[in-house]
Amino acid sequence: MRTRPLKVALLGCGVVGSEVTRILTTQADDLAARIGAPVELAGIAVRRPHRVREGVPAELLTTDATALVKRGDIDVVVEVIGGIEPVRTLITTAFEHGASVVSANKALLAADGANLHARAVENGVDLYYEAAVAGAIPLIRPLRESLAGDKVNRVLGIVNGTTNFILDKMDSTGAGYSEALDEATALGYAEADPTADVEGFDAAAKAAILAGIAFHTRVTIDDVHREGLTEVTAGDIASARKMGCIVKMLAICERSADGRSVTARVHPAMIPLSHPLASVREAYNAVFVEAEAAGRLMFYGRGAGGAPTASAVLGDLVAACRNKLAATTGAGESAYAQLPVSPMGDVVTRYHISLDVADKPGVLAQVATVFAEHGVSIDTVRQQSRNQGGGDEGAVEQGAGGGRREGGEASLVVVTHRAQDAALSATVSSLRKLDTVRGVASIMRVEGE
Amino acid sequence: MRTRPLKVALLGCGVVGSEVTRILTTQADDLAARIGAPVELAGIAVRRPHRVREGVPAELLTTDATALVKRGDIDVVVEVIGGIEPVRTLITTAFEHGASVVSANKALLAADGANLHARAVENGVDLYYEAAVAGAIPLIRPLRESLAGDKVNRVLGIVNGTTNFILDKMDSTGAGYSEALDEATALGYAEADPTADVEGFDAAAKAAILAGIAFHTRVTIDDVHREGLTEVTAGDIASARKMGCIVKMLAICERSADGRSVTARVHPAMIPLSHPLASVREAYNAVFVEAEAAGRLMFYGRGAGGAPTASAVLGDLVAACRNKLAATTGAGESAYAQLPVSPMGDVVTRYHISLDVADKPGVLAQVATVFAEHGVSIDTVRQQSRNQGGGDEGAVEQGAGGGRREGGEASLVVVTHRAQDAALSATVSSLRKLDTVRGVASIMRVEGE
Repeated sequence: MRTRPLKVALLGCGVVGSEVTRILTTQADDLAARIGAPVELAGIAVRRPHRVREGVPAELLTTDATALVKRGDIDVVVEVIGGIEPVRTLITTAFEHGASVVSANKALLAADGANLHARAVENGVDLYYEAAVAGAIPLIRPLRESLAGDKVNRVLGIVNGTTNFILDKMDSTGAGYSEALDEATALGYAEADPTADVEGFDAAAKAAILAGIAFHTRVTIDDVHREGLTEVTAGDIASARKMGCIVKMLAICERSADGRSVTARVHPAMIPLSHPLASVREAYNAVFVEAEAAGRLMFYGRGAGGAPTASAVLGDLVAACRNKLAATTGAGESAYAQLPVSPMGDVVTRYHISLDVADKPGVLAQVATVFAEHGVSIDTVRQQSRNQGGGDEGAVEQGAGGGRREGGEASLVVVTHRAQDAALSATVSSLRKLDTVRGVASIMRVEGE
Repeated sequence: MRTRPLKVALLGCGVVGSEVTRILTTQADDLAARIGAPVELAGIAVRRPHRVREGVPAELLTTDATALVKRGDIDVVVEVIGGIEPVRTLITTAFEHGASVVSANKALLAADGANLHARAVENGVDLYYEAAVAGAIPLIRPLRESLAGDKVNRVLGIVNGTTNFILDKMDSTGAGYSEALDEATALGYAEADPTADVEGFDAAAKAAILAGIAFHTRVTIDDVHREGLTEVTAGDIASARKMGCIVKMLAICERSADGRSVTARVHPAMIPLSHPLASVREAYNAVFVEAEAAGRLMFYGRGAGGAPTASAVLGDLVAACRNKLAATTGAGESAYAQLPVSPMGDVVTRYHISLDVADKPGVLAQVATVFAEHGVSIDTVRQQSRNQGGGDEGAVEQGAGGGRREGGEASLVVVTHRAQDAALSATVSSLRKLDTVRGVASIMRVEGE
């Protein structure tokens, strides 16, 4: 084994950074044996150097991140700060000074990954970011390397633990969205400002990264269609159960049927209870991959948290260090396919639509005509008169969003066959214009079949 | 991109080899783009060159595998023949002639992996074998690379599709072992001679490979404790259900509590229905990994079949080719920890024991005394008199192995707390000697809690 240590600089020392420091210290011998040389933590850039950080050597702390990455003797920079700037500049500066970079920064990678990869190649160093998607779950390396000889057609994932926790609570307790969010916040699963999670920004960044790797194409967060889960109601969850489904917040990356384009999107959707993703509970993440030869694969584990994220960071760090020792670099960006990313309207999917309609003859015929006019084929229709009382209580709940009116109102639940999202969307617009349709209580896509 | 192609030799052209050939041909452009150079299939060694193989170029076939691997211009040899010899000699010859090797050969790797790795290192080439364990599921690369900065404490896997299919049938239909095996054979999930699968040899080879990688220690198939599933009865399955469990054939690799040794074993066991492995149906495989920082991870997919296995082979082939182009090698064997592999007696686990006992006062006290004498703590006991009739039918079934006798027989089901397997085993031996114990109907370990 080489005795001269590899030098590592750490940018950021919050929950993940502290855990990385702890493992680098306590597992030093194992890491050295696996890498073939010892690893030395050479400096830690933080904003508040006087904050107490247990187990973090105070003498390594500095507020000057730029000077740290410019030292010239750093082999690998580990970045766990997050956000676009100043991180992007720090990373490119590290590249220019000969350091490989391990990052957990999904926002930056989803915004500017291609540029960063190019800079890494120019400087003959590695850029790894397993921790950026689904925390501890090995996902980027398996997609980039293990499936390098296969053709991935679809990636379907629960990649945000906060929203999975919220939906799981709603499903298991019957709670509404706000109540479930409150519990997630109280337990530390949701941040004080939960926007990035509940509006799907976090998942969209991950979807962009996954789609790019899976389809050998550049995909940024701007290419990802995004819908949050704030409008999902207890009625939607009950309605999903009624058709043997569960509501999950999904990141979906798909190759089109003709293989000539791809799509990436994030939104709540119903999936069958029999689907492996349906049983992913609490804040766990799981990603389902469909590849031509491999078939259906699933990767499951903790998507966030200090230790799980540190596990992914350390795995990348070992790889970057091994490459440094061997004076080589690992598999980098692969974007040769350059497939166009199609808009949401081109996605082929199914809709579950709950309508509040007038309870009189001919309404179903009117509604069915609208679907037919848009070329959307109906799979099932369930009709429930509100005035009959009793009966199918669940169906009544689905109209909860629209309130309950006197005198002849019914609820109509339509599930379509697969059709283009644009046609489904246009169908809903036309339905809203019908006199007999009092309101569209909910619309949700049905996936994973 | 380099225009001179990398040359690949294929050893074996059965189900997997044909699929590898098909993908190398149909996905040639994609593979070339991902590798950075085209790949040329230079020769295919087969035993029966005149057999019709659709899509396989007849001019590439040869019966002289040795000459093929000795050509000197082969960059990567793909071995999908299986068995120990002549494959071992072919692989080492390939190494000596500068070729990296991609193998799907679990038996050879589990028997002689350390030697093969050493030969690969001597010759500066790669040895990859993702396809040897759990088919298409990326497992070896994630364990070896993604978790390289973590400490794996346990690997718990369903790594044999045939036995999972049999147990799944028994569970879902109430069929006995023979009936379920017949169905597996009829559907092509079991071979004409199912010994390697049902006696656990196949799973034991995989357990050896997984344990070796997970614990950075050399483990061979001889180190793996192995029990088949041929004695699992419909009663065992029903009994498992009664305690909220399901019976699965598991490969279990564990680090001891003090971290100073490891164990590897393959046997049927009960796991809780809430465990992620419990829902793995049909011939699917899944491997559950517990690591210190990452927490609980699961990898799920198809464990066998031509296309899934070819996916794993091709992923390795791309990696081996990239390394050839970069004149480097990837992460090889890591066995620095050299932890001793402890015998089965040292394993700490729980037992579920069904006893046929005399139905008279004092029996339970006698039985409980035997457990206490061996230092084994009892978790639950369920007693059922046979003469009362009706009642708990399931409990009566558990005694099916021992037949039903007249005059005061009862069934006693004991579930223990965790104890050393040696103590549990000695307890059972002592129980058999009790006059009041007419027979031990079944013993099964309880895992995954």
